[in-house]
Amino acid sequence: MDTGSIAWAVVATALVLLMTPGVAFFYGGLVKAKSVVSMMMMSFGALALISVLWVLYGASMSSVTGLWDFSGNPLTDLGLTNLAAGETANTDLLGSAFGATFAIITVALISGAIADRARFGSWMLFAGVWATVVYFPVAAWVWGGGWILHLGTVLFGEDSTTAVIDYAGGTAVHINAGAAALALVLVLGKRTTFGTVADKPHNVPLVLLGAALLWFGWFGFNAGAEWTNDLANVGLITINTLGATAAAIIGWLIVERVKDGKPTSVGAASGAVSGLVAITPACANLTPGWSLLLGIITGAVCALAVELKFRLGYDDALDVVGIHLVGGLIGTVYLGFFATGTGLFLGGGLQQLTLQMLAAGAVLAYSFGVAWLVATIIEKTIGFRLAPDAEVAGIDNSVHGESAYDMAVRETV
Amino acid sequence: MDTGSIAWAVVATALVLLMTPGVAFFYGGLVKAKSVVSMMMMSFGALALISVLWVLYGASMSSVTGLWDFSGNPLTDLGLTNLAAGETANTDLLGSAFGATFAIITVALISGAIADRARFGSWMLFAGVWATVVYFPVAAWVWGGGWILHLGTVLFGEDSTTAVIDYAGGTAVHINAGAAALALVLVLGKRTTFGTVADKPHNVPLVLLGAALLWFGWFGFNAGAEWTNDLANVGLITINTLGATAAAIIGWLIVERVKDGKPTSVGAASGAVSGLVAITPACANLTPGWSLLLGIITGAVCALAVELKFRLGYDDALDVVGIHLVGGLIGTVYLGFFATGTGLFLGGGLQQLTLQMLAAGAVLAYSFGVAWLVATIIEKTIGFRLAPDAEVAGIDNSVHGESAYDMAVRETV
Amino acid sequence: MDTGSIAWAVVATALVLLMTPGVAFFYGGLVKAKSVVSMMMMSFGALALISVLWVLYGASMSSVTGLWDFSGNPLTDLGLTNLAAGETANTDLLGSAFGATFAIITVALISGAIADRARFGSWMLFAGVWATVVYFPVAAWVWGGGWILHLGTVLFGEDSTTAVIDYAGGTAVHINAGAAALALVLVLGKRTTFGTVADKPHNVPLVLLGAALLWFGWFGFNAGAEWTNDLANVGLITINTLGATAAAIIGWLIVERVKDGKPTSVGAASGAVSGLVAITPACANLTPGWSLLLGIITGAVCALAVELKFRLGYDDALDVVGIHLVGGLIGTVYLGFFATGTGLFLGGGLQQLTLQMLAAGAVLAYSFGVAWLVATIIEKTIGFRLAPDAEVAGIDNSVHGESAYDMAVRETV
Repeated sequence: MDTGSIAWAVVATALVLLMTPGVAFFYGGLVKAKSVVSMMMMSFGALALISVLWVLYGASMSSVTGLWDFSGNPLTDLGLTNLAAGETANTDLLGSAFGATFAIITVALISGAIADRARFGSWMLFAGVWATVVYFPVAAWVWGGGWILHLGTVLFGEDSTTAVIDYAGGTAVHINAGAAALALVLVLGKRTTFGTVADKPHNVPLVLLGAALLWFGWFGFNAGAEWTNDLANVGLITINTLGATAAAIIGWLIVERVKDGKPTSVGAASGAVSGLVAITPACANLTPGWSLLLGIITGAVCALAVELKFRLGYDDALDVVGIHLVGGLIGTVYLGFFATGTGLFLGGGLQQLTLQMLAAGAVLAYSFGVAWLVATIIEKTIGFRLAPDAEVAGIDNSVHGESAYDMAVRETV
Repeated sequence: MDTGSIAWAVVATALVLLMTPGVAFFYGGLVKAKSVVSMMMMSFGALALISVLWVLYGASMSSVTGLWDFSGNPLTDLGLTNLAAGETANTDLLGSAFGATFAIITVALISGAIADRARFGSWMLFAGVWATVVYFPVAAWVWGGGWILHLGTVLFGEDSTTAVIDYAGGTAVHINAGAAALALVLVLGKRTTFGTVADKPHNVPLVLLGAALLWFGWFGFNAGAEWTNDLANVGLITINTLGATAAAIIGWLIVERVKDGKPTSVGAASGAVSGLVAITPACANLTPGWSLLLGIITGAVCALAVELKFRLGYDDALDVVGIHLVGGLIGTVYLGFFATGTGLFLGGGLQQLTLQMLAAGAVLAYSFGVAWLVATIIEKTIGFRLAPDAEVAGIDNSVHGESAYDMAVRETV
Repeated sequence: MDTGSIAWAVVATALVLLMTPGVAFFYGGLVKAKSVVSMMMMSFGALALISVLWVLYGASMSSVTGLWDFSGNPLTDLGLTNLAAGETANTDLLGSAFGATFAIITVALISGAIADRARFGSWMLFAGVWATVVYFPVAAWVWGGGWILHLGTVLFGEDSTTAVIDYAGGTAVHINAGAAALALVLVLGKRTTFGTVADKPHNVPLVLLGAALLWFGWFGFNAGAEWTNDLANVGLITINTLGATAAAIIGWLIVERVKDGKPTSVGAASGAVSGLVAITPACANLTPGWSLLLGIITGAVCALAVELKFRLGYDDALDVVGIHLVGGLIGTVYLGFFATGTGLFLGGGLQQLTLQMLAAGAVLAYSFGVAWLVATIIEKTIGFRLAPDAEVAGIDNSVHGESAYDMAVRETV
């Protein structure tokens, strides 16, 4: 492989890794000042744990040899020793590192739903188990040679050229994380103050910083895999990752303006993330114009979808369901209509739409079900939910013994 | 095109995109805590809007076929559909994405001048109109085949090898933005507290974060265009983007030390930005030593120039004129003296200096005039300036319904 | 050289440059709100000064022609004029820019030890002198053709294939900075409040932001030099820079959990940095599995080592000794046991271990001694330590005339 492709793979890996701190700051800014440490630690803890698990056995699990395999054998290459000794060690290890960053951020994304009320040790346990029994296998299904990758030929015959499109992870990352988030919320229950106190962010610049780092890193997330393809579509992916995101901001702000009278900065940040989520599966299969439309639709719909939790009564604290599950579904299904060459409105039939919906539905159901089961077992055994008095007093102090801020510039006498 | 060049173009695009959040944090940290949301939203709003306009028609306008064309035809390629269908779609779309990021940040830079007192909707309208009638055409003049690009042969004959040097945008970006900022300031008038209350930044780490992201991204800004040139000058550009900026910090701090007795962190950040501005047009045409000199001069001069607003009485709140207009002029004109091979002191005659001054003057005058006209029309019709009582109460709350911070780590009882 | 390698070198340079603001935020968040400006200015000041010195003469000093030369001749290429005029100017200048970023951050790292109590001008003087008489020569010894690079053949004969391994700077950067930090602490003495007031960070998100930017940039730091090697080992380096760091977080948090009952976010950030330090010399010479072990050991040991200052009574305010000196020693010596092919436990004899310990010891002793001498001379002449009353009142105001924050969202009446 040439140096240009390799260079891009290293950069993309670093970019995607930076997204997890981006999640930490985006989520951290949105919560109250008494729980920002906890919020950020759920991302940084996932970063540490999932990286180690990936090197130990996650990489091995994330690709399969047989179409219907559940996952790769976790014992195949403990510590990546074989990979490091192979003839193509350089590119193999690089691909592995790139894959690790996807596993990390998918887990971190979930944490926003259960802000303020999860015990750290229990979260870490959940993170490790969910990555093992959900993320690693699903990554194998979608990208690692598994059944979702081959669903087109399974359903429509060996000659079919239509396949599930999930370029950078609408199902494997966003629907996956969003469905798990919904399950966790149902198991852990509502915050003590849910619905009675407005969720005002404690630090708006931190929210926007998180969103900025996410967008920046997302160029690596969406275009990174092109390193194995001579970077042949990075131009399209780059302009779409810009355009759809920008349009989603506009879409979200318009809804806010019409509904509440004022466009907000948190709305702009949330709109950007929703657009990034939606373009993730679609970035290589839409023209720039259709990407703009996807963006504006997603921004507008998600701006409405985040209100659902109040109507339906589930406490998805930082809108992981409303942004990642809903945005991931929109982007995945939109391809059924507008994918270049195969979408229903662009020269294709119903096959693309069928594939997209099946893939989305399967990952949604599997992730939700297993997350619910794992979380329930944790809650019933060692406990997952923080004690209510500790939640009211502030999770940062009770769980981590820390306060996020001491901003007095002058000594208090 | 080879993968190394393509990889660099993707990275440079992401780097330059990150600069606009950098502007948001740099400006946001400098204002009061009651207007940081507004300040950041002017950058993020520009990011969203200009990206969409670029895909719709801005890219088409930013290159011309005839030397004296005002701009390209905006209807040539709505939504970049033709570009995406072309044989060189990958590199064409990548070049377009890179170009978009320049348009975005140029607009965002303007906003600092009118901190605390501009209505958001009016700003967005101004941003869209100014980009359309000023930035897109000027980009076509300077880089897209237009008259400034060819001014050397126009003035000195077809055989002339001297051309306007504006490698990464001293005229097209910084003089352009700085002149528009001056016009806006004159139309909107002074803040209610101008000259009576010291402009102390509310969050110095946020200012330095903005400056750091700007510097980081500026390596993409200055060296990015080399992707079409086999990266042949990236070494020179990189060392100059480091050296001139560092020297400008020193220059600014020395002036502060001599004048006020104490070197400040805001001075260091402002000095860095001034040096980056000055080296922007010059990064590929100065030796590292002359770049150091340019940096120290620019830092020192801009440290003095930012005081002009108090003497002349225009409220350029965050020194867009003092840094971007002045710094852009210094860098552009300095090339007339020190450009390798063509500068007056380095083997050339007066041609380079003449070209630099004409280009700078033309962009300055055009941008100022049109910005003044557009802003005046907006102010006279829907209104641009915020009501004084809303400004005093805090623009964040009145315009966006948000407060930037709620930092109490413990609940107030 | 091909474009892929060149592209990577530009990106790596920008990444490593960003690490110095990362240091500023990591350190800045850890101190009190009344000294964060000072803390950050020590990094930004170093960034400015060392960049200029590098272009002037530092680059020339950092490579030698004779094995036993102290350094290169500083007057060889003032302002890099010769380099810029050479036939390989592009890659030569690029390599020089990459080298500059290492010099900058090594100096910046030192500053954390003397938080809250160093005069800015004296720090800048120290920074310039130390870079000149310690960093530039040591860089020449380790990487620029000097005696440490050739120590293997010096000790074990021309046929020896064992050489000191310090891939990205365990000795040249971390032991070097950590030893200088220890010397400075001894010269400047303890903060007035050392041991009586708990060192609580004033801004935890800023600490984590710094750590995140450090980790992100560290991919350029560790893998950057591969640009001269066709990127042949970037895969191994990337996965190790991920795995060891993640494992170090786990190691640190486990020690905290066992010792104090609660894992902290500052511990996670410190653990990450300690892991990054340890993997720096070792990133290209360990398998991913042994990197995990190195990480977990380093995190655990450094979590204990940062307590040493209280037992031994030296005020290493932000644990530069406990993290960079200790972590650098662990990583450097660990290679003696686990370096692929040459480590004592992996097929080699005692040669690798001997070399690692000699190199580490030599740099430690030289840096400590010269730093102590230079700092003592500064303290005895112009003064280095801030006056105690200014320290208590807050160094930001007394030295820079600035306050870091004014966070009131509403006007105080």
